[in-house]
Amino acid sequence: MNEPLTRTFLSKAIANLKDVWRGIADSGYSAETASLRPELPDGDLDRVRRQMRECLESRGGEVSARARAAALGRAYLALDATGRKRFLTVMAEDFEPDPAAIDEAIRALRTATDRRAQQDARAALRQVLESPRLRLLTQFNALPEGVKFLVDMRAEILSFLPQEPTLAPLERDLKGLLATWFDIGFLELKRIAWDSAPATLLEKLIAYEAVHAIGGWEDLKNRLDSDRRCFAFFHPRMPSEPLIFVEVALTHGLAENVGELLDKSAPVQNPRDADTAIFYSISNAQKGLAGISFGGFLIKRVADSLSAEFKGLKTFATLSPVPGFLAWLEGVKGDEGTALLLPEEIARMTEAGIAAETSAALANALRGKDWVSDPARVEALREPLLRLCARYLAREKAGAKRALDPVAHFHLTNGARLERINWLADTSAKGLAQSAGIMVNYLYRLGDIEDNHEAYSDRGEVRVSASVRGSLKS
Amino acid sequence: MNEPLTRTFLSKAIANLKDVWRGIADSGYSAETASLRPELPDGDLDRVRRQMRECLESRGGEVSARARAAALGRAYLALDATGRKRFLTVMAEDFEPDPAAIDEAIRALRTATDRRAQQDARAALRQVLESPRLRLLTQFNALPEGVKFLVDMRAEILSFLPQEPTLAPLERDLKGLLATWFDIGFLELKRIAWDSAPATLLEKLIAYEAVHAIGGWEDLKNRLDSDRRCFAFFHPRMPSEPLIFVEVALTHGLAENVGELLDKSAPVQNPRDADTAIFYSISNAQKGLAGISFGGFLIKRVADSLSAEFKGLKTFATLSPVPGFLAWLEGVKGDEGTALLLPEEIARMTEAGIAAETSAALANALRGKDWVSDPARVEALREPLLRLCARYLAREKAGAKRALDPVAHFHLTNGARLERINWLADTSAKGLAQSAGIMVNYLYRLGDIEDNHEAYSDRGEVRVSASVRGSLKS
Amino acid sequence: MNEPLTRTFLSKAIANLKDVWRGIADSGYSAETASLRPELPDGDLDRVRRQMRECLESRGGEVSARARAAALGRAYLALDATGRKRFLTVMAEDFEPDPAAIDEAIRALRTATDRRAQQDARAALRQVLESPRLRLLTQFNALPEGVKFLVDMRAEILSFLPQEPTLAPLERDLKGLLATWFDIGFLELKRIAWDSAPATLLEKLIAYEAVHAIGGWEDLKNRLDSDRRCFAFFHPRMPSEPLIFVEVALTHGLAENVGELLDKSAPVQNPRDADTAIFYSISNAQKGLAGISFGGFLIKRVADSLSAEFKGLKTFATLSPVPGFLAWLEGVKGDEGTALLLPEEIARMTEAGIAAETSAALANALRGKDWVSDPARVEALREPLLRLCARYLAREKAGAKRALDPVAHFHLTNGARLERINWLADTSAKGLAQSAGIMVNYLYRLGDIEDNHEAYSDRGEVRVSASVRGSLKS
Amino acid sequence: MNEPLTRTFLSKAIANLKDVWRGIADSGYSAETASLRPELPDGDLDRVRRQMRECLESRGGEVSARARAAALGRAYLALDATGRKRFLTVMAEDFEPDPAAIDEAIRALRTATDRRAQQDARAALRQVLESPRLRLLTQFNALPEGVKFLVDMRAEILSFLPQEPTLAPLERDLKGLLATWFDIGFLELKRIAWDSAPATLLEKLIAYEAVHAIGGWEDLKNRLDSDRRCFAFFHPRMPSEPLIFVEVALTHGLAENVGELLDKSAPVQNPRDADTAIFYSISNAQKGLAGISFGGFLIKRVADSLSAEFKGLKTFATLSPVPGFLAWLEGVKGDEGTALLLPEEIARMTEAGIAAETSAALANALRGKDWVSDPARVEALREPLLRLCARYLAREKAGAKRALDPVAHFHLTNGARLERINWLADTSAKGLAQSAGIMVNYLYRLGDIEDNHEAYSDRGEVRVSASVRGSLKS
Repeated sequence: MNEPLTRTFLSKAIANLKDVWRGIADSGYSAETASLRPELPDGDLDRVRRQMRECLESRGGEVSARARAAALGRAYLALDATGRKRFLTVMAEDFEPDPAAIDEAIRALRTATDRRAQQDARAALRQVLESPRLRLLTQFNALPEGVKFLVDMRAEILSFLPQEPTLAPLERDLKGLLATWFDIGFLELKRIAWDSAPATLLEKLIAYEAVHAIGGWEDLKNRLDSDRRCFAFFHPRMPSEPLIFVEVALTHGLAENVGELLDKSAPVQNPRDADTAIFYSISNAQKGLAGISFGGFLIKRVADSLSAEFKGLKTFATLSPVPGFLAWLEGVKGDEGTALLLPEEIARMTEAGIAAETSAALANALRGKDWVSDPARVEALREPLLRLCARYLAREKAGAKRALDPVAHFHLTNGARLERINWLADTSAKGLAQSAGIMVNYLYRLGDIEDNHEAYSDRGEVRVSASVRGSLKS
Repeated sequence: MNEPLTRTFLSKAIANLKDVWRGIADSGYSAETASLRPELPDGDLDRVRRQMRECLESRGGEVSARARAAALGRAYLALDATGRKRFLTVMAEDFEPDPAAIDEAIRALRTATDRRAQQDARAALRQVLESPRLRLLTQFNALPEGVKFLVDMRAEILSFLPQEPTLAPLERDLKGLLATWFDIGFLELKRIAWDSAPATLLEKLIAYEAVHAIGGWEDLKNRLDSDRRCFAFFHPRMPSEPLIFVEVALTHGLAENVGELLDKSAPVQNPRDADTAIFYSISNAQKGLAGISFGGFLIKRVADSLSAEFKGLKTFATLSPVPGFLAWLEGVKGDEGTALLLPEEIARMTEAGIAAETSAALANALRGKDWVSDPARVEALREPLLRLCARYLAREKAGAKRALDPVAHFHLTNGARLERINWLADTSAKGLAQSAGIMVNYLYRLGDIEDNHEAYSDRGEVRVSASVRGSLKS
Repeated sequence: MNEPLTRTFLSKAIANLKDVWRGIADSGYSAETASLRPELPDGDLDRVRRQMRECLESRGGEVSARARAAALGRAYLALDATGRKRFLTVMAEDFEPDPAAIDEAIRALRTATDRRAQQDARAALRQVLESPRLRLLTQFNALPEGVKFLVDMRAEILSFLPQEPTLAPLERDLKGLLATWFDIGFLELKRIAWDSAPATLLEKLIAYEAVHAIGGWEDLKNRLDSDRRCFAFFHPRMPSEPLIFVEVALTHGLAENVGELLDKSAPVQNPRDADTAIFYSISNAQKGLAGISFGGFLIKRVADSLSAEFKGLKTFATLSPVPGFLAWLEGVKGDEGTALLLPEEIARMTEAGIAAETSAALANALRGKDWVSDPARVEALREPLLRLCARYLAREKAGAKRALDPVAHFHLTNGARLERINWLADTSAKGLAQSAGIMVNYLYRLGDIEDNHEAYSDRGEVRVSASVRGSLKS
Repeated sequence: MNEPLTRTFLSKAIANLKDVWRGIADSGYSAETASLRPELPDGDLDRVRRQMRECLESRGGEVSARARAAALGRAYLALDATGRKRFLTVMAEDFEPDPAAIDEAIRALRTATDRRAQQDARAALRQVLESPRLRLLTQFNALPEGVKFLVDMRAEILSFLPQEPTLAPLERDLKGLLATWFDIGFLELKRIAWDSAPATLLEKLIAYEAVHAIGGWEDLKNRLDSDRRCFAFFHPRMPSEPLIFVEVALTHGLAENVGELLDKSAPVQNPRDADTAIFYSISNAQKGLAGISFGGFLIKRVADSLSAEFKGLKTFATLSPVPGFLAWLEGVKGDEGTALLLPEEIARMTEAGIAAETSAALANALRGKDWVSDPARVEALREPLLRLCARYLAREKAGAKRALDPVAHFHLTNGARLERINWLADTSAKGLAQSAGIMVNYLYRLGDIEDNHEAYSDRGEVRVSASVRGSLKS
């Protein structure tokens, strides 16, 4: 849902770990790894490989093995990008399961006759299919900040992966491990507030916010004001790192314009009077947890928490971007692109000075933001764009059942319905560039969530409100 | 290392969960499971099976699936022993991996040609070998006290297992899951002290202490006095449940008698003057974590923590029971049993009124505690028993490399050496019954731990002090 | 409301402070006070007096003065009873306000003409009337546990006072200082619960409970069960010392028998079903705060807290002892004593074997507990004792407006009314000895508290329920 | 030491209290004060006066009196400046001690004969001299934020005082009360750090910093970096309000230039290598606590805390402004002003283009900051200004013993010595305007503090280093 963390931020986070690790690693297990060169030339690589082997053999006992893993972790952090790729490649290639043992276990499974023997044989086969590198990854966890280390390591692997496809098995193992450790049951929901959150945490919100960039401390304070709420999931072993966070505005009625929500000079509402909670930004904060999803739980738990605090809340909805709208419009080719526009719409646009007979031409005409300040063009564009956006969200698919728009897919999977499409709702440069300023409300209605989810998951059916249904028919 | 928790305690712990769960489960997903009868007759069992299936299919989305799992959990707690066995049996038998999919994946692995395809095929095979019940187990974790629920469920399965061997695959899956979640890296070491620990936690120490029973609150207070320390590992999701705890006395020199350590009327020493930390009791507190080991890490981390607090500490050692000594003595049969005793020892014992020409006869003569109050018998027994105990600990094996005595095996695995064998060190009924009152010091010397561990793990070699070596030669 | 703390407890509390103070006092200001002899003979007393003077002159600056006060405090703790009395006597006698300065300030006040000058002169006079010892007392506060030190010092002064009336001015100053520091606004109400309170705090409840002694840890646990509550006021600088605490039972209807409330084997009620909160024990925990009252605030704040947690609570009442009933009965002399008993009551008692024609004789007949097991005597005593107790509580005065019974005075001042008098409500030895087993419910009804208070405070009028009014008429 | 808080900030702080108070005051005691008009006309004033009387009479009991005080407090916050002055004036004028009772008590003191009677009479006189308004002030303390309310009320009274001298007795009583409540023994020293302090607290640092203004969040972060420390005193009842705070830099050697200390682009030093702690800014944060001093204790406690953390620290010193230097220079008149300058200094300055034959002319020539960029003028000014500044700090008095410069007076009272006078140490506009850019190091040397304090307090003698002594002689 958010852009990749900048490299700088990531490096800094890892740099912070270095101090912590120094102490641990100084404990005497770093002889092998002490003087490695940053780019990890062959001889150094051999030493790394040997140390990895010793970790896996648990030489000197499990406690010592973990201390060795600390030294390896420290060595990793001191490497440059080349060295890290080489380090990771060793993990990916040298610590595969043993093919002979697999063959043997398959044979044993084949010959198992009764139920119990089959169960045992399947378990044994599964055991030998577990790659040794998984155990190596686990050993990093005994260390201060070990979990964060692994999360950041996966972020790096993901960034290397396009150029280094051999890292894929390592990435798969690491993802599986993190998915188990970041099971929703271990996460804590915490409110982040101006009067309790430390500055280090607030800094991270500014850095990680992916939907509507936070313009500094005053802007942040505005988003944590008495009619706002911010919640995040935390893992007990990464207590100062949000995993995912959501910003909520407590409003009267469905908010339809994010500029108004974010306006620092707007008067603060009394949240006791609010009847609606608007989730206007959800950002994943850990690139290393990509593909491990907690968004649905976050929305549910935040809605529960808000309901308990504010008895007057009746509506839970989002105000969401439509990140793929214009890209789709631009990409529709040929006749299909022509067919998207209705003759009367084309006529009205032409009259307003917009020459757009195909969807691509229309997308092209929307580049830049000058049209926004021309009432005639705005008026001529309004109807066709709202109609096309409804169609894009409700009909266009990536595959059989999955909505093409990623934000739509996220909320529809969570059981929301497409409630309202808002014109000129985000006139920031980013908002105009991705969706001609259109934003969408997805509605979470408790009683409908399961049905909506089933309709979408089983049949790819997008549930919409009456008004959106109207747009779709026209 | 400790005895099974009494059933009463376990039931009570689970009972406490009921209140917490009531709230959650009342949320509407309990229609299927609301009115189950305690013994779970066939019709009810079908409903349970259906609800399990729906959890796995994630009908209504992942959030709903977790709510359904809550209802299942609540239903489980309301069952009687018969019902629970039936519930668990369904999980063990009905949620196996799909054999056809396994065959298919094996075929795919066979035909994979290049390295990358093989890696993918192995991962795919491993995936289909994962039984659906593992996912069901995981779903219980989204709930308050979910981790404790699963730990207690495993304790129950383990208690049923001898009569219900079909539960074995379920137990195996659950153990694997808990081993991942209770990785040492997630555990927090905390000191338990009289002036900070809440009464609920202290109660548990009294209940769980397995080595030297705690006789009540005054006894407990004595064990938490200023020259004592108690430390435990905790999991972040079970904050008021110790996993394993150790009791330490800060002494001057190696303590050789546990009665003196536990004497409530003994004067309190100034811990600043201590040069030795004696680990005199280590108890596992969660039967449901049997086989998942943290003892070695506990000793290491406690030693680190004590070193940082008390600069004068030079020696870290245990004062440990020898739980299997007399049982071994009694069990040695025939000539071997006769050969264990030296003629001059037999003569001296006979003179003191002990007719013991075989080890079994000797064990027999030690029943009851009357010999302890007869100085002549005590004197005649001292030398042969100390010698035999040294032999028992250092030479007798359960298998090729594993020490027969379980406590010895634990400390030797952790890299300790057998330092001293103490006569009349524990004259409690339990101490006399298991080891004729003998206790042992195992010494943890930082510089030797790895070597000692390797010697024991690789070759089954037990490292001993010079004095113990002397006993072994005689 | 409670008995004096035993000396042992007090000494122990002060002893605990010694360690803390050692560190502070070692900082170099203890030369003067280092080697004082425990009984503080004259030469030593001079050194103490000199050090006190230097504290007051703030020689070396205010920071140094506080360090000197630490050394003095440490010296005090090392003294025996004789030495402490001598130490305190110096404070009481040598640090009086300056009479000449007072005369001068009175003269200035006499000659002040305009309002402003008079105000200034009054303030100046008040200033010189402040004794230097008050400043000395204040200086002890800069130290760890300084507040507790002063509270315990006042407890000691109060215990010395009967024999050492010259300590009165010191006691007065110290009381004034503590009253300002223990203003209700600084106190925190905290719930004390089995699953959060540390053992050190719970120990103190056992030690301090003054109304119904706590018989050990099991009894205490019973009083903290789910249908019970315990609350205490704490001062931020004495965080592990309750100042006053109240025990509450959540019941259905007015509890009339304390034995039932305290019965460990009674089933636990669901507190959600309770309609009544019974305050069945209120104990002051700090003898050194005698005469500084927080009881009224405690009841009010606890009632507020319970109301917020349990919406079903409608009645707030006590189940209270009548500590002075039998003593009063015994003390009424001559005709008055005879007139208290009605002829028919005397007749019925005689018939049951109780020869009691005067109140003193009746009191005498109630000694011992054998009458309780004789249904005839119990029946014959019931009516006259309930009637006399009503009279005692509602009519008998200590002075013009103050109820003779101290517990009655406490609750009537707080605005409660006398609701019900309960027969055989406390058959413990203590209950029988002080009030023939009678206990009383005082009712706190929010809307009547102010009126009740005014009636009692202004006119000494005791508000009673209809049923008690009935007893009074008969 | 710092400038008055801006009114805006104060109003905002009081405004924040309003919400909290609303709840409390809504409890039914606000009938009298509910509809007061902001400027508090006569009729409304009467109602306020009546409610005050009822608080003092404790009508309905002490609990009710405190609730009434809450309503009064709320009423006060809703008033405008005129109304508040009228409210305060009533408190100052209508609640004086009773003159007749004072006369009576003086008479009783006159006639008291023995020591004990005199002590009692003095205590009684002191009692009647206590004004009822003091009790009224105390009653505000039972409320949430009551302490902060009173602190802010005193800040307002102090701001009104110049125009409303009749408020003086009220201010005096309030100061006395706050001095008792803010006794150093109640204050907690806390470190304020970027990774733990909440944003609300950090905001206050930015607002309150009085010596070197903080330019925003980045500047603040720089001042909390790893080679910096910030500590503050807090009162337990105002946990998010610093009372006084100090900023410290850990350096190698005495820092002589504050611009370098505050430079955000300067590299961060490893604080483990530091040998010197420089206290470069001390700011009082509560105007309402003016005249109640904790600065000496703050420096002592921070020095203790830093010593414990950094074993290498050997020197504790300040880098302090000289706020009154140029004002003094300008104010010296006539011959005295001429005599301050040495002929050779005048000659050199003239040569550099500075026409300054008197100190006032010199002060005049230093207006503006253009001289700083002219090396010739800088060089010509250096020697005379350093010499004059030494003289100003060491010799010029406000009264017999008190240094004229307020910052000098603060540190000399605390036992520091004047160590070094630094040229061009603060070239900010403020630094140039008040002291021609000169800053001073005051040195705190543990062994000398008492002596230095005595020399200064008893005899007004300023202890200086050898180098400053050199300047004074020339």
